[in-house]
Amino acid sequence: MNQHHVPSAPGAPVRSGVPEHGRVPKYYAVKARLAVLVDELGEGGALPTERDLAVRYEVSRETVRQALRELLLEGRLRRRGRGTVVAGPKLEQPLSLASYTEGVRRQGRRPGRSIVSLDRFPCTDALAPEVGVRPGEPVWHMERVLLADDERVGLESTYVSEARVPGLDRDFDPDSSFYGYLRERLGISFGDADERIETVLATPREALLIGTPPALPMLLLHRLSRDEEGRPLERVRTLYRGDRFSFTTHLGRQD
Amino acid sequence: MNQHHVPSAPGAPVRSGVPEHGRVPKYYAVKARLAVLVDELGEGGALPTERDLAVRYEVSRETVRQALRELLLEGRLRRRGRGTVVAGPKLEQPLSLASYTEGVRRQGRRPGRSIVSLDRFPCTDALAPEVGVRPGEPVWHMERVLLADDERVGLESTYVSEARVPGLDRDFDPDSSFYGYLRERLGISFGDADERIETVLATPREALLIGTPPALPMLLLHRLSRDEEGRPLERVRTLYRGDRFSFTTHLGRQD
Repeated sequence: MNQHHVPSAPGAPVRSGVPEHGRVPKYYAVKARLAVLVDELGEGGALPTERDLAVRYEVSRETVRQALRELLLEGRLRRRGRGTVVAGPKLEQPLSLASYTEGVRRQGRRPGRSIVSLDRFPCTDALAPEVGVRPGEPVWHMERVLLADDERVGLESTYVSEARVPGLDRDFDPDSSFYGYLRERLGISFGDADERIETVLATPREALLIGTPPALPMLLLHRLSRDEEGRPLERVRTLYRGDRFSFTTHLGRQD
Repeated sequence: MNQHHVPSAPGAPVRSGVPEHGRVPKYYAVKARLAVLVDELGEGGALPTERDLAVRYEVSRETVRQALRELLLEGRLRRRGRGTVVAGPKLEQPLSLASYTEGVRRQGRRPGRSIVSLDRFPCTDALAPEVGVRPGEPVWHMERVLLADDERVGLESTYVSEARVPGLDRDFDPDSSFYGYLRERLGISFGDADERIETVLATPREALLIGTPPALPMLLLHRLSRDEEGRPLERVRTLYRGDRFSFTTHLGRQD
């Protein structure tokens, strides 16, 4: 599905800023005009400066800034150096058992990961049934920044039983696919998983690690997966930049 | 999956505000303490006033306000009259061919819809293949606010061929399930659908219609559905309050 041609009632996007019987907020009118400019410029096109836009639209720089801020948060624009350019379409990641690695590759991007931390801790009561251990038994927590073409796009926390994956700190390359490692080194294959997706704000630490403005809306995926025997395998919490990712799924009659 | 006990590294949530080698931003430290208070109070519990919280935490009211704003955007708190109370968990809507009506009922809530507009317009080039008509042929655009227990929680735009659903303006009750209508009155059943989910900011008009603060992060679902013969049926754009909804899915090996 095309990102930039979502059908709407005729007359959008300006109409979409008009409350019934109301006025278009000034910043929103500027945003609508900027959206047209963004389409004209195309991916990578450089925007005029805030000052020039304020002159062109006869509004204050603060009004221009508010319009630009929303377009940045939505992923229509991005910062490049001191300027602002038109962003490419959001990555479309399939909701599937496939790994991050496979999903990004399918879109012709180069996946990467950068390790933030690898800790072992005694399993909490809440986590125990999710990773198939008893409370107090050791659990790995591995945190990695996700990359696409060297751009930081997400942050992933994986929780898995140490007994199940004893050599994680020795023989796993953190810049490789964890699912590939489980399959090839340990003969563990995924059976099924439950996922939940929501929108949250990045914490200051998360924003710093991913390199986003704080409070950027993020997509948060929770995954509980089981192996082919139906035993709990891992708990994963993955935060994706809301301005860079969307998720797709195909629904059949059996769903 | 439990909303409020997402496992994290031991020491969260304060740790999650600490940049590496950095300090916890002041508002974030307040937010972490408020999150503990929220858990203690439980759903429906009333928060002290901004002024009282500023005194208790020895910070400015602006700092308290920033922390409260994030908790409101995330759906942990909600406004009630002039006060602020602890919100219930987010609704968990399954990603499935089932309708909004069925999804909300499954969670013991009462679904409702309130019509905003019903228009007919000549189909655009982009929309034509998605709803199975030729450009210029008439298409319905129906816009409805979605309700759960009388609370406004979303906004849905449906695009469907007029030739396919000729009596939409006469014999469809807009406060009922459109899918039920298609099935029972027209004998049309869904075959399959493609969905895409992303996070966007509410426009001023959308925020007014749903009754949210402008720029609240929303979850936007795009759906393209086909009937049992595989013919394009409808294009749907549904905006859900990001502070009130999450989406769930089960992934099997065939996905």
